[in-house]
Order: sequence, then structure tokens, then C-alpha cells
Amino acid sequence: MSWELGPADLPDLARGAAILGTGGGGDPHIGRLMVAEAMRRHGPVTVLDPDEVADDAFVVPTAMMGAPTVMIEKIPRGDEATAALRALERVLGRRATATMPIECGGINSMVPLLVAAHTGLPVVDADGMGRAFPELQMETFSVYGIPGSPMVVAGDHGETVVIDTGRDNVRMEWLARGATIRMGGSALIAEYAMSGADVRRTAVPRTLSLGLRLGRAVREAREELRDPVAALAEVLSTTLYAHLRVLFTGKVTDVERRTVDGFARGRAHVTSFDGTSTLRTRFQNETLVAEVDGEVVCIVPDLICILEAESAEPITTEALRYGQRVVVVGISTPDLMRTPEALATFGPSCFGLTEQFRPVEESVPASR
Amino acid sequence: MSWELGPADLPDLARGAAILGTGGGGDPHIGRLMVAEAMRRHGPVTVLDPDEVADDAFVVPTAMMGAPTVMIEKIPRGDEATAALRALERVLGRRATATMPIECGGINSMVPLLVAAHTGLPVVDADGMGRAFPELQMETFSVYGIPGSPMVVAGDHGETVVIDTGRDNVRMEWLARGATIRMGGSALIAEYAMSGADVRRTAVPRTLSLGLRLGRAVREAREELRDPVAALAEVLSTTLYAHLRVLFTGKVTDVERRTVDGFARGRAHVTSFDGTSTLRTRFQNETLVAEVDGEVVCIVPDLICILEAESAEPITTEALRYGQRVVVVGISTPDLMRTPEALATFGPSCFGLTEQFRPVEESVPASR
Repeated sequence: MSWELGPADLPDLARGAAILGTGGGGDPHIGRLMVAEAMRRHGPVTVLDPDEVADDAFVVPTAMMGAPTVMIEKIPRGDEATAALRALERVLGRRATATMPIECGGINSMVPLLVAAHTGLPVVDADGMGRAFPELQMETFSVYGIPGSPMVVAGDHGETVVIDTGRDNVRMEWLARGATIRMGGSALIAEYAMSGADVRRTAVPRTLSLGLRLGRAVREAREELRDPVAALAEVLSTTLYAHLRVLFTGKVTDVERRTVDGFARGRAHVTSFDGTSTLRTRFQNETLVAEVDGEVVCIVPDLICILEAESAEPITTEALRYGQRVVVVGISTPDLMRTPEALATFGPSCFGLTEQFRPVEESVPASR
Repeated sequence: MSWELGPADLPDLARGAAILGTGGGGDPHIGRLMVAEAMRRHGPVTVLDPDEVADDAFVVPTAMMGAPTVMIEKIPRGDEATAALRALERVLGRRATATMPIECGGINSMVPLLVAAHTGLPVVDADGMGRAFPELQMETFSVYGIPGSPMVVAGDHGETVVIDTGRDNVRMEWLARGATIRMGGSALIAEYAMSGADVRRTAVPRTLSLGLRLGRAVREAREELRDPVAALAEVLSTTLYAHLRVLFTGKVTDVERRTVDGFARGRAHVTSFDGTSTLRTRFQNETLVAEVDGEVVCIVPDLICILEAESAEPITTEALRYGQRVVVVGISTPDLMRTPEALATFGPSCFGLTEQFRPVEESVPASR
């Protein structure tokens, strides 16, 4: 069931990953160009289904870390993620047999592909967030008992920082964020090294292929002049992300955004075309909550995706601009990400939100 | 020529180290109590003269890092420096044969003794600053070609951060400072692991015993009702720190101090008892420059020490208060610390000062 992912797949994957990034995870554009170049030199990448990863495989997830507002301006050198993986191998005294995304959103769908192209390692079709989240303890790996430590943060001057906080993944995030800020606001990481058995137990499965399918569905719908949002809903209905709800359509009328403490934080307003109704969002890298006229319609960890109204092209939080015409959709997360222990790690209260989690398919019963 | 250092030596050493700390290096009081307790349990510590360290010895310096204003409030757990040394041993795959101070000032005269008491390792009678400096690249080890990396920063939650910036000790300081800030503003470190041959080539020799001699000279002068400052000058005249100059006597009339970017930064004014003359200092943890009525009388890397007027008890920058009656002295640094490469690493321009270095014995030709 392993398959090859080549340069022709990258535009669809980038689009789908930006949708799953729920506004964050970083713009995948630059990562896509880097992977395409690496694939031209080294050939396509092998993707492993989680079911075919050996129990005693040694999987080292790789990713980019930082504020998306910084990532779009501070281009990585290209070899930092591989350097992070190699450094973690040295710390652990063991060679990786595969890499894997920590989140399936944005640029972090691309970083493991870059590592795979450079090293010849396969990529596991799974991830630790099932979307994008802003912080490293917000991974299903952490929810289900894997320590993120030791982890490596690698910068573009060839420097590495190895962080070991034992089983305390919140403290690990705190120290890694500090290192990332000192490296200029973005850096590449390797963390949550684990066995194949732990991948199957803790990861959200088949999210790389899901990103690819979502991106392809949008493209094909556009080509065939069908509704791309309906095409997205159709693909999702057959997956762990069963429900898509259209939350709102309108025009972006206000955006407030600051890069603070190593994150892109802010809020946005979307006003309906008739001017009678307003959707408000708040974000920390990712969009966290959407309210329509004061009532919560979708909240983390369910996905809130702001798409261009005509094309369904995803818009990241750092690219939101006054005047954009958008459709805002909510997508239900897999059950794995709605358990009490999952909500204790990346539910609303983990972001300082006072609202309770409520599944989007209950908040917005019918769609279209 | 090795000798034993026991609990009875600690008060004198703490006093002498605070003098060599030139206002910084942290108040040694708490460190002294911790070493005394460790010595009660484990016995005295063996001090090695640098000349008797084997060429192929493996010396791992240990220290506390952070803002002195934080250190006096955030008490270490006690085992962090040993944890840092052990972690660095694991990274390098080699056991230390001795530890050593990175600076002979303040609390960092005590930290290696604590490690020595806990581990049974000897302490080398030498250091990497010949005084205290605020940043990790400002070590003679760095000036004369030793990489500080890999280094370990250990916090009081059992966490470790291993930093490797190759030969770039400025970047190492930058990342270690970031980790220290995230650990609450102070942390314990192990860095600049080196051979015995490199100790002899790059360290400032016999500064631990110098601290002990200075502290003892002050105490004995007090006991015998002699002038303690004259006693200091007499001891120094036989060492690499040949010249002591009294720069000023008066009353502290203004102190401005902030804890910013992980450092205690500020300035102080001392006004002569007749009110006609003012000495102004600026400090970054350590006192950097002293001007009398607008003219520089002593500047880094020469030592500027603010002492209580009657007792010659050293006053650290974080303890400066309005109304203290003080005598301010300048002490010449060893020649090793006045070379062009040394001044390029910790001369005035490294602290943003525009004044040129001028030896204190030239600025203030005659003393008393």
C-alpha cells in the first residue's frame, strides 16, 4: 500500500494542506518549491500507509516551527530539517527508518517530504494534529503518552539546540519556542521520535493522502465548473472528518494581527454581502473560534477554514486582507481529537477561550 | 601543589570573589551556604593548581547564568550544575576529570565547588574571565580559540538544553541566554569542555586562590584595625593584577536598575562627601565604566569594585542603594586580558561603550 508522491502532486497537496491548516501551519508555497526542486534532483518520495510501518520501526517526525508571519519572509536554507533529524539520531544513537509530519497543515505537509527527498527515507501517511495547531504539546502523540523529548531545534546558521524536558511536553514547547524566537522567529525541528506501533496508536492516520485528495477535489471541481466547496464536503464525508458546514459567506472587513511571543495572534471580521450579519474569528497562527453575530458556530479543535469565495482557495491568517470575498467553512475533527484527554490538550480552554467545545455538526445542523 | 578547600575558607572566598566580581557574578551568599552544606556531607574539595593538571585531562567548567537581580530571589535546587556537567559528559561520550570556574566573581566561584563536593571531582584553580563578565563569549577560553559548544543549560525542573553552534560562541551565548530567560531568568551551565593543556594555554591562572587571599586580607585587616583597601592593594601587587587605584570615595546618590533581556542593566552615581564631585558608573550585571566629573578613570576589562567605605565589603550592582558610603577602586587586569584579541571580545566596544580602553594605572597614576 506504499505509494510514490512526485512533483506533479505537490500543487494539489499544498492546497489541501492549507485547507487542513485551518489558517495556520504557514503558507506551503515556498516549501512546495523546495520539495519540487529536491524531487527533481533525488526523485519522488515513498509514502507509507501507517498499517505497513513495522512495529519496531523508528519514526522521527520533522517540521517547521515559528510564526507564519515570519515564515513567509525568512526563507529556510533547506537542509535544517534534515540536520535536526540527524542530530536527534545522534542523541538517541539510532537511525530513523521513516519521517512523518507533526501536523498535516500548511508548510508542515512539505517539510517531511523535503527530508524524505534528501535522505531517501519514506514518509508515513499520518500526523500528530490532524490539522495545524500552534504549539508542540498539542499533538495526539502527546495526548496519548509519547514524550516529545529529546527534540532538536535547528537554525539556518548550522546551529542545533537539543531540548530534554522528560515527559513534560508543555515545558518542551516553552523552551523550543524560546530557541525559535532567538533563531529569528522560525526554525526546523525533529521531535516525538517513536516506534511504528506508537504511530498506529497515537497518530491521526492518512492525513497526507487526505490533503492530496482535498486539493485535487478543489482543482477538479474548478476545472469542471462544479462547486468546489461541495466537492470538499463530498471527499470529507467518506473520511474521519465526516462533516463540512458552510458557516458564512461575505467580505473581510477588519483584520487585526500582531507577531507576539513567537506567534501570529489576532482577529478578523467578515461581513455578509447584505451587511446585516458579521462573523468574527480569533487566531493564534490557526483560526481558533468563529462566531456569527455573537454566537459560536465552530471552535477548536474543529477546523475553521477561510476560503476564497469563488475558487475555494484557502487563505492563511497571515494573508487575510480587507476586501477579500470569502466562504468560511467548519470541518469536524476525527473522534480521536475530541476525547476528554484531547480536549484537555488542545480544546478551547488551552487557548484561553472561555467557550465550551461543541461539535460543528451540532452547532450548525444543516448545510446548504 | 593541590590543596584542600573546606567550609572555614568559604566566607573569605565569597568576599574575595565578590570583589573580583566587579559588582556582578551574583551575590555569593546563597552559593556559599549550599557549598558549606555539601562539604558537611561530602567533605572538603580538592583544588588543583593549573600546572598539575595533566595535558590530556578533561576539564568541564560549570557556572550559574542569568541576571543577578533574579539569582538573589530564585534559589537553585542545588543539583542543576552537576546535572549540566553529567549531560555534557553524555553528549561528548567522556567523563570529566575536573571542573573549573568560568568566572572567578560572585556566585560562580561557588558553583564549581558545589559540583566538586557532589561529584568528588577536583576544581582547577583558574577561570575564563579573571573577573566576572555578563556574556559567555567573553571568556579567555573563547579569546584563545576554544569553542564553548556543545554546552548544556540545566533548569530547576530537571530539564536540559544542549546548544551547539560550532565555533560561534556569540551565537551560543545568544541561544543560552534565551534558554535561561525561559527557565525563569537564571539557570546552571556546563561549557567550554577542554584539555588540561588548553587550560594552561587559555585560562587566567590561580584566581580561586586569589579570591581566597583577597577575602582573607580584608578580614584580617579589619580584625587588626588596619586599612582593608591597603591590604587588598598589597596582596594584588604580588599578582598578575598588579595595580589597585582608589578612584573615589563618597555616598551613593542615585541608582537606576532594570532587569532587561536577561541582564541587570543600569547606572549609579556616587557623590563626594563635600558634594563637589560625582562618580558615575554604568553596568550590565558588572560595572563597566567609571567616570569622575565626566572623565573616564577606569573601564572594562579593568575591574571597578564598589566597596563599603569602612569595611571594604564589596557591594554587588543589584545591592546598590541610595545612601551607602562607599570607596570605589579600580584594579588592573592581567596582560592576558588586555591583548588586542581580548579587547575585541570584552573591551569597551563590546558593551556599546564609545570610550577607548586605557589601563587604570595610566588613568590614575598615583594612589593614596
